[in-house]
Amino acid sequence: MPVIKVGVLGARGRVGVEVCKAVQAADDMELVAQVDKDDPIEEIGKAEVVVDFTHPDVVMDNLRWCVEHGVHAVVGTTGFDEARLDTVRGWLDAHPGVNVLIAPNFGIGAVLMMQFARQAARFFDSVEIVELHHPNKADAPSGTARRTAELVAEARAAAGAPPMPDATTSALDGARGADVNGVRVHAVRLAGLIAHQQVLLGGGGETLTIRHDTMDRSAFTPGVLLGVRRIRDVPGLTVGLEHLLDL
Amino acid sequence: MPVIKVGVLGARGRVGVEVCKAVQAADDMELVAQVDKDDPIEEIGKAEVVVDFTHPDVVMDNLRWCVEHGVHAVVGTTGFDEARLDTVRGWLDAHPGVNVLIAPNFGIGAVLMMQFARQAARFFDSVEIVELHHPNKADAPSGTARRTAELVAEARAAAGAPPMPDATTSALDGARGADVNGVRVHAVRLAGLIAHQQVLLGGGGETLTIRHDTMDRSAFTPGVLLGVRRIRDVPGLTVGLEHLLDL
Amino acid sequence: MPVIKVGVLGARGRVGVEVCKAVQAADDMELVAQVDKDDPIEEIGKAEVVVDFTHPDVVMDNLRWCVEHGVHAVVGTTGFDEARLDTVRGWLDAHPGVNVLIAPNFGIGAVLMMQFARQAARFFDSVEIVELHHPNKADAPSGTARRTAELVAEARAAAGAPPMPDATTSALDGARGADVNGVRVHAVRLAGLIAHQQVLLGGGGETLTIRHDTMDRSAFTPGVLLGVRRIRDVPGLTVGLEHLLDL
Amino acid sequence: MPVIKVGVLGARGRVGVEVCKAVQAADDMELVAQVDKDDPIEEIGKAEVVVDFTHPDVVMDNLRWCVEHGVHAVVGTTGFDEARLDTVRGWLDAHPGVNVLIAPNFGIGAVLMMQFARQAARFFDSVEIVELHHPNKADAPSGTARRTAELVAEARAAAGAPPMPDATTSALDGARGADVNGVRVHAVRLAGLIAHQQVLLGGGGETLTIRHDTMDRSAFTPGVLLGVRRIRDVPGLTVGLEHLLDL
Repeated sequence: MPVIKVGVLGARGRVGVEVCKAVQAADDMELVAQVDKDDPIEEIGKAEVVVDFTHPDVVMDNLRWCVEHGVHAVVGTTGFDEARLDTVRGWLDAHPGVNVLIAPNFGIGAVLMMQFARQAARFFDSVEIVELHHPNKADAPSGTARRTAELVAEARAAAGAPPMPDATTSALDGARGADVNGVRVHAVRLAGLIAHQQVLLGGGGETLTIRHDTMDRSAFTPGVLLGVRRIRDVPGLTVGLEHLLDL
Repeated sequence: MPVIKVGVLGARGRVGVEVCKAVQAADDMELVAQVDKDDPIEEIGKAEVVVDFTHPDVVMDNLRWCVEHGVHAVVGTTGFDEARLDTVRGWLDAHPGVNVLIAPNFGIGAVLMMQFARQAARFFDSVEIVELHHPNKADAPSGTARRTAELVAEARAAAGAPPMPDATTSALDGARGADVNGVRVHAVRLAGLIAHQQVLLGGGGETLTIRHDTMDRSAFTPGVLLGVRRIRDVPGLTVGLEHLLDL
Repeated sequence: MPVIKVGVLGARGRVGVEVCKAVQAADDMELVAQVDKDDPIEEIGKAEVVVDFTHPDVVMDNLRWCVEHGVHAVVGTTGFDEARLDTVRGWLDAHPGVNVLIAPNFGIGAVLMMQFARQAARFFDSVEIVELHHPNKADAPSGTARRTAELVAEARAAAGAPPMPDATTSALDGARGADVNGVRVHAVRLAGLIAHQQVLLGGGGETLTIRHDTMDRSAFTPGVLLGVRRIRDVPGLTVGLEHLLDL
Repeated sequence: MPVIKVGVLGARGRVGVEVCKAVQAADDMELVAQVDKDDPIEEIGKAEVVVDFTHPDVVMDNLRWCVEHGVHAVVGTTGFDEARLDTVRGWLDAHPGVNVLIAPNFGIGAVLMMQFARQAARFFDSVEIVELHHPNKADAPSGTARRTAELVAEARAAAGAPPMPDATTSALDGARGADVNGVRVHAVRLAGLIAHQQVLLGGGGETLTIRHDTMDRSAFTPGVLLGVRRIRDVPGLTVGLEHLLDL
């Protein structure tokens, strides 16, 4: 089996360094280009698939270059709204045979947690989310927790689920967490933790809990490698790693 | 919307009593027949869907009667092997329009746990199962834990997953649990518990845990009602509640 | 060993019924009196120890009767403030040899959770509490969670612990829970649950979690029996089951 | 407040390096000596308290030197049996005013977990232990889990607790874990994990779970620093960090 030639954009960034290490350690890949902001982008043309963990300010230029030069792209850089996604779709329409994956989260465990929560949400009376992180985190709740709550809310709305039961009449301010589209989300900040989330679903005398624990900041690299391996076979633009998991 | 006319076979058994109560409490169902061993089975002919929680010795006679009289059946009675399932398939071939659901587990949470474990199994280096029950349980591990382990093992074999890493060289007898098709299963027996299971999946700096807790022995009734509602639209024989969940 | 003669006040109340059953099931106790509101209290004089789960309106009269008649009391009725406790102390001073236990919580597991949280609180940078209950509960957070937070806050203040680290600068309203004396408390309400709480303590690359799960509403009876057995040997007024646990 | 002058023996070992960093980061300590196997031990004489993470072959010589030269010692090196402890006691008798702490575990969270498990063990019908580690671990169960089981068994024996209930009549080999003095211990090995343990206690409709998670291999350093701070005030030989925690 021929190895996949991989280039990394943002190769000297914190995430890029981890991606380079993971690509080098993979038997089925070869790291052919490491490009960062002062390097000529042409270097990346040696690659069959490029991984981009750069910055919202430069990622669109990077992506256009890749699409125009026939290089598939796996993108973890943030800042994609619908307008940007439409622009990328336009480029890809003009260059059939080039594929792009844009994903806000490459943690396979986190993506599975969100998918399972979405799938299970309509079978239970109640769903709540508890996310737990180290105390240096600036936002609460986490982006992953918000996104999970949105997915749960959408699934319940689509299934015509009634509002969740809650007889609370006397509460301390904040006790019942934040309300994200009708789903309660609680954010714990605790020294010693890294990044964790549990989705609790309950009803009819039983509960189902889906918990994801990130123990190491490199937990996203298996998802990036999976994206690199799979994007070559998925035409056009794919948004979200879940679409490559064949669930 | 017309209500569903439901009959219960084994109506005075421990499980049957709970099913009767749940049917009576459901807005979209009417309990039209409650039959137990000394009652005439003809009574059940009033029903559109029958629920059978009886005994392996009588369930085949019950099922044949239902199929021949055009009554759909939702069966929780145990003891179905491939030979019995083939016999049922034969009856259904002769009576198109009659449908049967046979399920070993009607706990929606438990079924989802097994499905999610199966789906996630190939993305992680390691999978282990810890089941926890009250100390009056006779078998270890539980049937659900064994079945989960089998599903995990099948999914990993199908994906060509390598054996799980385990550097244990010095172990007390039993410390590493039971081996079910290469998946380690640990059985805790603890006063105060009811029925619980967690599937732990890990690799690449992250873990995903899927946990199911049964808090009440009536936790199976929502799954039975779901079966009653859905079986009318699923032709022939369906084995396992998971096939009615549209996952 | 002679059995302990036990009387129950509030014997036909929901809790009293459970207490009567537990006393009858105990090898070392005899249930000699079951008294409720329309019964003559003199009946209770047959007992060596009385258990009172009645109502704040009548408990003081009950207690005075017991103290004056030389009957030890184990009290789970709520509504004791410092003034009431002082009144009870006065009665006991006048009747040496009679002992009273007043406890807001007879769940041994819950009491141990609170004690351990208090003991451990000063060794960690962060402490947060997540309590989880069925959705019919009116107050949030639970009384046990509030009390735990107060104990944690007192222990940290006594040890001169600095404020807990928290870099949150952008939060949805309620995301970080309720603030009880500087300790964050999160209240989950979920169908399928009964009564659960976890105390999370973390710092220096490790976390300690103390979790209590009530699976059955009778979980308080072992604590009541322990109180009955022990109160005979502990002079005067004891407030809180923890003082009888010899920790 | 004068700072504590600290020396480290085994300063270039994996653990020693972490200890040196932690001492240097502590406001109330000064790192005055870093000694490893080819360095002259006299250097350590500058210290008021020495920390020894070396090797069973050399630790006794190190300790004797410290005691004879009036330096307190905090020892994490393994290999101490009763005979060795008696030898150390003899040295300390001859040098009053010098104190030694020998501890098999400096993780404060782990030590608290063991103490709480010991304290709680007699109040519950059942106690089981589940320990979970990365798959590179050679022994199962872990030393901490074995030690916890021994403490639980001792506490139950001292309280006259009956055997734990267990109705298992049909079990797969290993399903019920290892038996350590009558306490069942289960060892999970999972990629993505570091070092974790939970002690489950249950009875009477409730469970208490004490869980310790090590997220970072430096989790032992706060315990070492606590030992350095406290050992100056605790005469003679102290075995186990728990004796310095004022529980």
